[in-house]
Amino acid sequence: MKTWQGRLSTPSSSLFDSFTSSIVQDRVLAPYDVAVSQAHARALARAGLISGEEAAQLVAALSDIGDEIGSGQMEWRDDLEDVHTHIEVQLREKLGDLAGKLHTGRSRNDQVAADLRLYVRDHERRLLHMLLDLEGALIELASRYSDALMPGYTHLQQAQPVLIAYPLLAHAAMLTRDWERFREAMARTTHSPLGSGALAGSSFPIDRRHLAEAVGLGAPIENSLDAVSDRDFAVEFVFAAALCMTHLSRLAEDVIIWSSVEFGFVKLPDGFASGSSMMPQKKNPDVLELIRGKSALVIGDVTALLVLVKGLPLGYNRDIQEDKTPLFHSTETLEGSIAILSAMVPEMAFDVDRCAASISSFAMATDLAEHLVRQGVPFREAHARVGSLVSRALDQGSGLTDIVAAEPAGEAGPRLDPTMLTPEASVRGKATEGSTNPEDVRRQIERAGARIAARRHWLERSS
Amino acid sequence: MKTWQGRLSTPSSSLFDSFTSSIVQDRVLAPYDVAVSQAHARALARAGLISGEEAAQLVAALSDIGDEIGSGQMEWRDDLEDVHTHIEVQLREKLGDLAGKLHTGRSRNDQVAADLRLYVRDHERRLLHMLLDLEGALIELASRYSDALMPGYTHLQQAQPVLIAYPLLAHAAMLTRDWERFREAMARTTHSPLGSGALAGSSFPIDRRHLAEAVGLGAPIENSLDAVSDRDFAVEFVFAAALCMTHLSRLAEDVIIWSSVEFGFVKLPDGFASGSSMMPQKKNPDVLELIRGKSALVIGDVTALLVLVKGLPLGYNRDIQEDKTPLFHSTETLEGSIAILSAMVPEMAFDVDRCAASISSFAMATDLAEHLVRQGVPFREAHARVGSLVSRALDQGSGLTDIVAAEPAGEAGPRLDPTMLTPEASVRGKATEGSTNPEDVRRQIERAGARIAARRHWLERSS
Amino acid sequence: MKTWQGRLSTPSSSLFDSFTSSIVQDRVLAPYDVAVSQAHARALARAGLISGEEAAQLVAALSDIGDEIGSGQMEWRDDLEDVHTHIEVQLREKLGDLAGKLHTGRSRNDQVAADLRLYVRDHERRLLHMLLDLEGALIELASRYSDALMPGYTHLQQAQPVLIAYPLLAHAAMLTRDWERFREAMARTTHSPLGSGALAGSSFPIDRRHLAEAVGLGAPIENSLDAVSDRDFAVEFVFAAALCMTHLSRLAEDVIIWSSVEFGFVKLPDGFASGSSMMPQKKNPDVLELIRGKSALVIGDVTALLVLVKGLPLGYNRDIQEDKTPLFHSTETLEGSIAILSAMVPEMAFDVDRCAASISSFAMATDLAEHLVRQGVPFREAHARVGSLVSRALDQGSGLTDIVAAEPAGEAGPRLDPTMLTPEASVRGKATEGSTNPEDVRRQIERAGARIAARRHWLERSS
Amino acid sequence: MKTWQGRLSTPSSSLFDSFTSSIVQDRVLAPYDVAVSQAHARALARAGLISGEEAAQLVAALSDIGDEIGSGQMEWRDDLEDVHTHIEVQLREKLGDLAGKLHTGRSRNDQVAADLRLYVRDHERRLLHMLLDLEGALIELASRYSDALMPGYTHLQQAQPVLIAYPLLAHAAMLTRDWERFREAMARTTHSPLGSGALAGSSFPIDRRHLAEAVGLGAPIENSLDAVSDRDFAVEFVFAAALCMTHLSRLAEDVIIWSSVEFGFVKLPDGFASGSSMMPQKKNPDVLELIRGKSALVIGDVTALLVLVKGLPLGYNRDIQEDKTPLFHSTETLEGSIAILSAMVPEMAFDVDRCAASISSFAMATDLAEHLVRQGVPFREAHARVGSLVSRALDQGSGLTDIVAAEPAGEAGPRLDPTMLTPEASVRGKATEGSTNPEDVRRQIERAGARIAARRHWLERSS
Repeated sequence: MKTWQGRLSTPSSSLFDSFTSSIVQDRVLAPYDVAVSQAHARALARAGLISGEEAAQLVAALSDIGDEIGSGQMEWRDDLEDVHTHIEVQLREKLGDLAGKLHTGRSRNDQVAADLRLYVRDHERRLLHMLLDLEGALIELASRYSDALMPGYTHLQQAQPVLIAYPLLAHAAMLTRDWERFREAMARTTHSPLGSGALAGSSFPIDRRHLAEAVGLGAPIENSLDAVSDRDFAVEFVFAAALCMTHLSRLAEDVIIWSSVEFGFVKLPDGFASGSSMMPQKKNPDVLELIRGKSALVIGDVTALLVLVKGLPLGYNRDIQEDKTPLFHSTETLEGSIAILSAMVPEMAFDVDRCAASISSFAMATDLAEHLVRQGVPFREAHARVGSLVSRALDQGSGLTDIVAAEPAGEAGPRLDPTMLTPEASVRGKATEGSTNPEDVRRQIERAGARIAARRHWLERSS
Repeated sequence: MKTWQGRLSTPSSSLFDSFTSSIVQDRVLAPYDVAVSQAHARALARAGLISGEEAAQLVAALSDIGDEIGSGQMEWRDDLEDVHTHIEVQLREKLGDLAGKLHTGRSRNDQVAADLRLYVRDHERRLLHMLLDLEGALIELASRYSDALMPGYTHLQQAQPVLIAYPLLAHAAMLTRDWERFREAMARTTHSPLGSGALAGSSFPIDRRHLAEAVGLGAPIENSLDAVSDRDFAVEFVFAAALCMTHLSRLAEDVIIWSSVEFGFVKLPDGFASGSSMMPQKKNPDVLELIRGKSALVIGDVTALLVLVKGLPLGYNRDIQEDKTPLFHSTETLEGSIAILSAMVPEMAFDVDRCAASISSFAMATDLAEHLVRQGVPFREAHARVGSLVSRALDQGSGLTDIVAAEPAGEAGPRLDPTMLTPEASVRGKATEGSTNPEDVRRQIERAGARIAARRHWLERSS
Repeated sequence: MKTWQGRLSTPSSSLFDSFTSSIVQDRVLAPYDVAVSQAHARALARAGLISGEEAAQLVAALSDIGDEIGSGQMEWRDDLEDVHTHIEVQLREKLGDLAGKLHTGRSRNDQVAADLRLYVRDHERRLLHMLLDLEGALIELASRYSDALMPGYTHLQQAQPVLIAYPLLAHAAMLTRDWERFREAMARTTHSPLGSGALAGSSFPIDRRHLAEAVGLGAPIENSLDAVSDRDFAVEFVFAAALCMTHLSRLAEDVIIWSSVEFGFVKLPDGFASGSSMMPQKKNPDVLELIRGKSALVIGDVTALLVLVKGLPLGYNRDIQEDKTPLFHSTETLEGSIAILSAMVPEMAFDVDRCAASISSFAMATDLAEHLVRQGVPFREAHARVGSLVSRALDQGSGLTDIVAAEPAGEAGPRLDPTMLTPEASVRGKATEGSTNPEDVRRQIERAGARIAARRHWLERSS
Repeated sequence: MKTWQGRLSTPSSSLFDSFTSSIVQDRVLAPYDVAVSQAHARALARAGLISGEEAAQLVAALSDIGDEIGSGQMEWRDDLEDVHTHIEVQLREKLGDLAGKLHTGRSRNDQVAADLRLYVRDHERRLLHMLLDLEGALIELASRYSDALMPGYTHLQQAQPVLIAYPLLAHAAMLTRDWERFREAMARTTHSPLGSGALAGSSFPIDRRHLAEAVGLGAPIENSLDAVSDRDFAVEFVFAAALCMTHLSRLAEDVIIWSSVEFGFVKLPDGFASGSSMMPQKKNPDVLELIRGKSALVIGDVTALLVLVKGLPLGYNRDIQEDKTPLFHSTETLEGSIAILSAMVPEMAFDVDRCAASISSFAMATDLAEHLVRQGVPFREAHARVGSLVSRALDQGSGLTDIVAAEPAGEAGPRLDPTMLTPEASVRGKATEGSTNPEDVRRQIERAGARIAARRHWLERSS
């Protein structure tokens, strides 16, 4: 039943069969494998290696097998190595000897490379859509909070007042870069290994360009040894997934902190939280914690793939069968994480009063210093003066506003006006492009919306 | 149906259910979960919180559930979160309200920590047995080749002649260290988190020492917050697995190279090799390549686990649910790899003639230099003289023996005797403990055999 | 000047020299290399290969070189490969041809393995001391706050009241496991590779046991090929460092969150914080953030080392020269992190009033449920009832105490008493070993103190 | 001396200074920091915040400082945090209070982000040149061996004959993908964070577009919080470096195996090899082994960077200071590795006779099977028949040619002609695009040459 038994005198041990089998992982490749085999059957006919009638029979039988797999009728068996063998065995049952002609001029090596590329290409395209969904949800949430205030942080310490929309836009911005990376990776994924044989090409005049087109891939890979050895497309995809997961983990971290009792900035929707089996009052941000945790696993996936290909001699080596576990895991994890966030983000509700009330008067210290600069004080000097006002306030247990109001005139330079110490004044005073100034934030929202629309348009045209 | 629904007004979304469910992974914990719950039922009775009769009913029903799971009758459902919920729901079906008493004085947090520790402890013990099997197979193979010669390598360049047994002993030595690491890790794994509650302990007087004994764990963990937050035992186990996998990958690499046509040192058993779907003559070392590849994935697993726990605040966080994927994957991978190597190693056949014939005359160059030292030449000078003889031989395309024989007398110091340039003389001349000298190699084999026996004895006593 | 030039006709290119040089990294090994060479000189004399007088000259000259290096007089040069070559070149300058005898019966391969083991062993011992210092500081801090209350968390949501000492003890507990791992790793590190030659042993009768004792290492490694190929001790050390760094990162994360304005639990000492170049009011927890960040790099280090050794054929391969960068980096990072935390922890000041006041009434919900259980309500039912009280409180915007007080009698089972809803009652009510009950916490502190003392004693005896 | 001391009452501890200092790493950023500060001085003048005269003084003094650093006159001090502080302190010494105005409207956060982007952008551009050099060297080597034969491998087992040029082209193909990745990453790196302030923008009307142009960066980053928090460009660069290093490691692995005594395919240039301190005959492929080893470390670098950014809340966190170690390490490692390979590859000499002679007759088995297919035998049947011929040959210890010649006529289908079993016929018979057919290989060489030329042209235009 093995496609390669000929030269070996002993059948493989059952330990061998179960250890080397990849069928648990690679059955997900079945539709791609069917398509690839159908294209190959037609290519064999074009090259005069089988008749048109034979090709038609092969194509039809493969379609049937694809349908059977799709409807759950295939019985997956450990002793049948992989998805290719399962399909080939079925084909032989249906067509007898004719099935044996299908492997003319090809190898498992180019076949599995093509299957994998089709899988990755499909998921890259899907992720391009999904990323726009999530980015859109964040932008929509931002536009709902485009004039509400909250503290902005560095080092998890209050830094300056910002609009709630502002960090949401920063999180969305990360996804725009992910989108670019997936699009660029997709361009490399679509090259076609078909017709490369085991390593050296084939002595049959298979038309590689035609084969590639038939399965919807792009130009043939230039060197056939490279075509069967290369897994860059998988590593690059999983890296893009890992970096994207770190972005989602950063969003998760922010929202977990914001939804703590102590911060109290955001209320998570009940449908996306869990309670505790022991503590009746608990409402836990499980989804966000899981995303943070799952990002760790996808980092492990990209590490694993880089290690896998490191130091491999050229030509197919069985090591790379193991690319499937991290590749499929990271694909499912990223898609699952984006999907649930896209559903959850629209239901997140900020407590705008609490957010605004949480802004400490000290968060306006920079505004004070910049006010002094406008009066001619060098920045470093202004910084020092405000710094000592802050110290005094902390020592006295009062806010910055009171201390400023109480500062004796003329003591240390231009007079400071405590009434300017409001979060509203702070954000409105911002004068640079890309700042948290409400007008600029609105511009950022508009620009993001336009980019999303343009990208959706590109996706429609290119599919 | 959720054990924690009380405080939440909306039921969880189905996206939430499938995203947060761990049932695909954690069903393997079912027997441990049953044992832990049975112990808890008895502890509740001891503490007077339920009656002895109630405890007996709970224990019996749990046994039934365990049997049902064991025989494949449990229907695993995505909307029932995890293995604990599945078992609890079954328990309620069997016992009604009484089931609701079982969760008195405990939490999912200590429960899952205990389940996991029992799982890890069992696999540590199992691996201690399996490592001795593989080490034994290597030692046995070494003893079959304890007087056959082969080239020894550094930098994959022939360095000095060695016995075939000698590198096999080096590979076995790596496993002895793995054994120690697993044993030491096991001692830490066996501490008991039971009775820790969610984070702070329980207000019910549960006897933690008794609980621990009842499930075969050791002393209770001293601080209950640590008990529910700690996953060191899992990280340490997976690290030990990863390091062990690198050892297996090194063995794999050596044998892959040795079984190439060009080396031709070893013949792999047909039952552990595969052919090619395209090239009829191929016989490929798939098992070894897969082990090399799988070691990459287990490196990814330990990376993932370290990343997972990095920077987590104290107390249970849902992130650590994700420990299961890398933990279970690495366990299965390591056990599978050791098992197949233990079956394959005894069938490996060295071509002793080819091995011996492959030893280049240059591999005895060190012996020449050391001979000169015995005649009073400082080593660095001897090294330089032999080095230039080697150069001359290479320039003339001849072997070292011929060049030595042709060296004019008196030219450069003491006369060299070409007849000493044999691999046999080289290995027999080794005079240090632990060398490739045949007598010492026999001693190494004996010592390894004795150590394996002693360790087996320890395992028997301690189980 | 190269110790190995003999056989090569062309001198190495300068690109080669700088690419292959490890002198920037390995100069830190100089004192170990001197000690190893001195021991080797004496061993050569014992074996009759050099005279006692020659050995004495070598030992004295090596001492001088060691002193010169110690006082900064060595000029490190890229074209002199590594620390061994630098020392050998100096030795030749001092002693002429005699220096050339020192390399009799040894190889760079066993030499560098011994140097590295001595380095790792010394740092393992040092870390055993340092870990006790930090654990001691945490225990001392815990004892200062052994009756102050704070919220305990799971999922970063308030869960139950705990003593401030309680999470500090949990953090300390992680370090006790690190201590064990370093001690066990040290036992494996101390095995001696000396006398192993390049791979096969030596034809000179070097006494390996004596050599090992002379440099303070333990028993000779049993197989010399293993001795020169093995870097397990380095990988294991770096793993222990990485896991320990994740523990420090968890402490850092907790304290970063606790020192945010919103939590306000802890005040960091000014001497361990930084300000902002722009925002005058900032006081940032830089040390803690750096520790969190550095833990990421040490995770990278252990990944790198595992990848480095994965798939290496036996015998020394130059790849493993690269072990030095991650090994030295992780050593310095861990030691630096523990040192600064040990200085900083004693100066951390909790705001005990704020901590206590932060405890939400909902954090006592579990106590309510457990109270009901004592009245005979099954836990799951009690959990549900309290859960709905919590929901009602949240809907009405009131605390749990008020809702309980307002609950109509008899409605849903036994009457609840709102006065029991205090954090003090909650922690005092805990009845299990290892809980946050103040008496148990005091016991935990005592036990930790006793363990630290015992471990210090062990360190003194074993040095 | 700290730029942020104002608010803190105690000066930082010396432990703090050395632990938090990044000066050992970030001094390499000095030229970028000078350029960024000069651009900022001019922007302040444009915004009317300082006079043109003041701007000119600042620019001139910064130039002087840049020159002083360039000529090694800067004394780097641990207590001066980082490169920014060193330059600012020097500036104050030169210009007094005027220096204090330079920090108006900016923050360390946008400053260091810009410095880093300029560093990465420069090295990306440099690598684009270097990759073409190495690819060119491989193509040139391939063209020297475009009609010489060698065995092609899968699973390190001889598979089919190929031209020596053929695997060299496959290695070169990997670099063309690296080139694309670096070019695309560069496009993202060049976005400008300048003018973003600490997190929220600035209240001074700094012209961000002008600032960006002044330092040669592209469009301003749209959201300023994103601008200071984002390190994607560094992670993406290090990933591209890691994947490129795995490619170099694969080349290294192939050449290490090819240069073993047993393969004997290639002779390494003496200038790029080392000998052994103990074994006079050794010539070791150190450069290649180090590249293989260094690739492990760069995999550790990308892991570290992903872990570093995972789960970080928004806004600058001090953790990301640690991005410098892996970023600079991987940059230097990759550049060094490409440089030395570019010098070494042209000096590699294949032993064409040995390569050709090494091709086993079994490597033509596929050609036999494909011959049968041309006679009408289904491929699977042909494969099986040739497989059993191979088995027979192996049993009899003869080559495939002899067995074919001895095969009785008519036994199993069409007659086989042993004279077709030559490597020359095998490669010439290949009929697919991208195969090892000599004509196609020549086409691949030409196409690669043209692509390199076009890319060089693009680089010239775009610089």
